[in-house]
Amino acid sequence: ALADLQAWCAARGYPMSEAVRKQAMLPAGCDLLPNKVGSAPGFCLNLNGCLVLCTPGVPVELDAMLTASVVPAIMTRYRKDRTSAEGGVGVEDSLFVKKLQVFGLGESAIEARIRARLPDWPAHIRLGFRAGSRLTDVKLTTQTRLARQEVPYWCGRLRDILGAHVIGEDDASVADALVKALLAKNLKVTTAESCTGGRLASAITAIAGASAVFEAGWVTYANTMKTQLLGVDALALEREGAVSEPVVRQMLAGALARSGADLGVAVSGIAGPGGGSPAKPVGLVWIAWGQAQAMRAQALYFPAPRDLFQLRVTQVGLDLMRRLALGLVEPPAYLSERAFLPPQA
Amino acid sequence: ALADLQAWCAARGYPMSEAVRKQAMLPAGCDLLPNKVGSAPGFCLNLNGCLVLCTPGVPVELDAMLTASVVPAIMTRYRKDRTSAEGGVGVEDSLFVKKLQVFGLGESAIEARIRARLPDWPAHIRLGFRAGSRLTDVKLTTQTRLARQEVPYWCGRLRDILGAHVIGEDDASVADALVKALLAKNLKVTTAESCTGGRLASAITAIAGASAVFEAGWVTYANTMKTQLLGVDALALEREGAVSEPVVRQMLAGALARSGADLGVAVSGIAGPGGGSPAKPVGLVWIAWGQAQAMRAQALYFPAPRDLFQLRVTQVGLDLMRRLALGLVEPPAYLSERAFLPPQA
Repeated sequence: ALADLQAWCAARGYPMSEAVRKQAMLPAGCDLLPNKVGSAPGFCLNLNGCLVLCTPGVPVELDAMLTASVVPAIMTRYRKDRTSAEGGVGVEDSLFVKKLQVFGLGESAIEARIRARLPDWPAHIRLGFRAGSRLTDVKLTTQTRLARQEVPYWCGRLRDILGAHVIGEDDASVADALVKALLAKNLKVTTAESCTGGRLASAITAIAGASAVFEAGWVTYANTMKTQLLGVDALALEREGAVSEPVVRQMLAGALARSGADLGVAVSGIAGPGGGSPAKPVGLVWIAWGQAQAMRAQALYFPAPRDLFQLRVTQVGLDLMRRLALGLVEPPAYLSERAFLPPQA
Repeated sequence: ALADLQAWCAARGYPMSEAVRKQAMLPAGCDLLPNKVGSAPGFCLNLNGCLVLCTPGVPVELDAMLTASVVPAIMTRYRKDRTSAEGGVGVEDSLFVKKLQVFGLGESAIEARIRARLPDWPAHIRLGFRAGSRLTDVKLTTQTRLARQEVPYWCGRLRDILGAHVIGEDDASVADALVKALLAKNLKVTTAESCTGGRLASAITAIAGASAVFEAGWVTYANTMKTQLLGVDALALEREGAVSEPVVRQMLAGALARSGADLGVAVSGIAGPGGGSPAKPVGLVWIAWGQAQAMRAQALYFPAPRDLFQLRVTQVGLDLMRRLALGLVEPPAYLSERAFLPPQA
């Protein structure tokens, strides 16, 4: 632990103070749980047959250590027990959970599809659902090593019936799937954002390797900036308003021309809580997506608190680009669902 | 509940299906907990003297209902009990927690300052700390109504000794404090982002009312875009690299000129995991902030996973603008702390 601390300080040019040195004072006989994000190490030890794990309390440090060393320490311990004590229960024989991330299909729609098209679903693979904000976790849970071996097959069957709605496995995000699809096809995207204020761009650039698929994005929050930076017609803004089809189409055209990207997305909407009117209520958003020569635009409606509104618009924007990058040119069915459309539509 | 559901459907043009109508079937004698984010209402009822609260399971719906109706239902119930049964314990007499959000001072630095400058801190107001990623919660906890009345006074004393490090109370964020400070001075900001990829802009526009203080932001991820969109000298990019002082200064100058904003921030760094070199390791970032005529720039170093790196750079960028908006022109002391500086600095 002391050597790790000395290396940590040396790499950062910190003095090795007493307060730092103290962090290496650990119980005799413990094992180290390394900390890649902070200085203080964690440790684990056996106490009266019980595995005790200790970590720093800083959330980001614990978070990083959980996957890096805490879970592996538990796995190792229980694997060992299983080998030594014949018949004991090991980690592999206990609960195993595989998740599929699904976008644009609700829990009940997924369930109905499984019931209709996979009537042979086995009882020993339990299905669970967790609805997030437009992303739904489909969880396959097994309790035995034998059942666990069948999970890949049933994941494949689920992928067959859920099609492009499947974003990926486990903790996959829509942005993650988008960047992967763009990399595979060697395509670049751009973003022209009003109501999401940079959230589309930051979702893409949160993914490592995004620089190969994303070169520029605009946040044009004010009308004058839509005109000056993206070439949106001032007359269209005045006549139709910022939240309108011609404006999002021109925003996207401007961003595509200026960035040289293959495809992109533009959004303009009313995030609220202020700024709504009877004709254009809080929650209304116009979205344009595609290429300069093959652009689509649609009005969507997500009456929800500001943060949730921005999240939903961002996820739909990412998914529409993901589908194009996969070569799916038809707009997804969810875009014509009642839950996505303005009241007057 | 049925009337609420009918209004919900009518507002969105949904048909009132059996599946929706079923959501209004609730236990006799319960009270409604309205759901502003989804269709299904929650409810609460007394069962053998116990208050039972039921909500939908969708996280965003529960989240919204928690503050809107679940907590108030608990408060009301226990207030009533206290009045009816003399001597019973009411909510106001139990645990009360007030938080101050502090930026740029670690837990131990805050504690040391309190010990040195507030030696008269009362024993009946417990102090707690929770370190997040550069923001630290300082929690004042009291157990009696009398002690609670002293909290505002002691919050004031804390603000005196922590100065501009105090961002705000309870759940205040740095972006929140920035937007408030800009509104108060009628100032506008802009952002020119490389390594944060839109996260600075989206943090600002996450705050309701941001449109009065933020008109445009750029995400110039590729070098060519830094030149084409913000006028960064191609020669400077080639000679000094994208992560350099001249480049962030020119990015900021370009964004200020094009947006007409009063002040702004520009960042360019290596978010990782790839792209680092011995001279410019992952975690290095150049940041420029201020006005065209009064610009500062500095190299900072946050060797951390990509997401945490982007978060830290974003928070420092927001805080530097917040300080300028408050009229504090001297750079904060934390910028010269070892924990913020590159190893060679």
